[in-house]
Amino acid sequence: MNKITETDISFLRQAVALAEEGVRNSQGGPFGCLIVKDNQIIGKGCNRVTSSNDPTAHAEIVAIREACASLGDFQLSGCTVYTSCEPCPMCLGAIYWARPERVWFATTRDDAAAAGFDDAFIYAELAVPMKDRSIPFGFYHQEEFLTPFHVWAGSTRKEGY
Amino acid sequence: MNKITETDISFLRQAVALAEEGVRNSQGGPFGCLIVKDNQIIGKGCNRVTSSNDPTAHAEIVAIREACASLGDFQLSGCTVYTSCEPCPMCLGAIYWARPERVWFATTRDDAAAAGFDDAFIYAELAVPMKDRSIPFGFYHQEEFLTPFHVWAGSTRKEGY
Repeated sequence: MNKITETDISFLRQAVALAEEGVRNSQGGPFGCLIVKDNQIIGKGCNRVTSSNDPTAHAEIVAIREACASLGDFQLSGCTVYTSCEPCPMCLGAIYWARPERVWFATTRDDAAAAGFDDAFIYAELAVPMKDRSIPFGFYHQEEFLTPFHVWAGSTRKEGY
Repeated sequence: MNKITETDISFLRQAVALAEEGVRNSQGGPFGCLIVKDNQIIGKGCNRVTSSNDPTAHAEIVAIREACASLGDFQLSGCTVYTSCEPCPMCLGAIYWARPERVWFATTRDDAAAAGFDDAFIYAELAVPMKDRSIPFGFYHQEEFLTPFHVWAGSTRKEGY
């Protein structure tokens, strides 16, 4: 990771300001995110879980969706994600799928947990064998359930991601 | 986990059918998901990453958003998630935030990886120390960056999730 610059710090501060504004406007939890490419903000968001009845509307997801829409691409090549807090597992996964160049974050999963958010718990659950998870996960397989993968493999029009 | 029922298998089969249909219609990767409450389908989706330029548009995320919109709630209490493939870390995180009652899945992360999808890689990255990750994550903190958490703690209108 490169050393942080004054420009990076300024963007991080703006992500934190989005987080504060979101709470003051009753949008959702205290989290904000900015996505920057070539020094331009191309996506931003605050947490809107409760105001939009969408458990996936974390700041990072909102910002990634906006940035991708603005680029017309499902990848964030060359972008930097600035987020007010260490991403939860959902958002970390989203970041890996979007593949930005790097991520800066301003507070930690423990700060989030101390504020009452389950991030640390979900990180722990990911490492637990499926049978011991707090939400039961069941695997049931028939050979025919692989059909979508076979159709995918045989498709000449498929676009990977 | 309860023993799977014929009704569960029927819903799983429908999730797999959504996956196949999504590939045939060039929506995105070979994945589908259904969400059921009281034997009614309240949300469904196929992967739409490439067709909607949204790296977060995995089948489970699409279905969770639709189910929550239809319930007018950010929680999936009492719901069952049927998904054609073991959820990736992003979708697993989303499921934990949505808190359904249980999850059934029809194929595994290894099947997804064999088809060219990064699920297994992202699971591995989650367990790697931040400094060794393929996407660099940097932590930079100032005391003022905790302000959103303080505003949240002091808010009388906050709604947790």
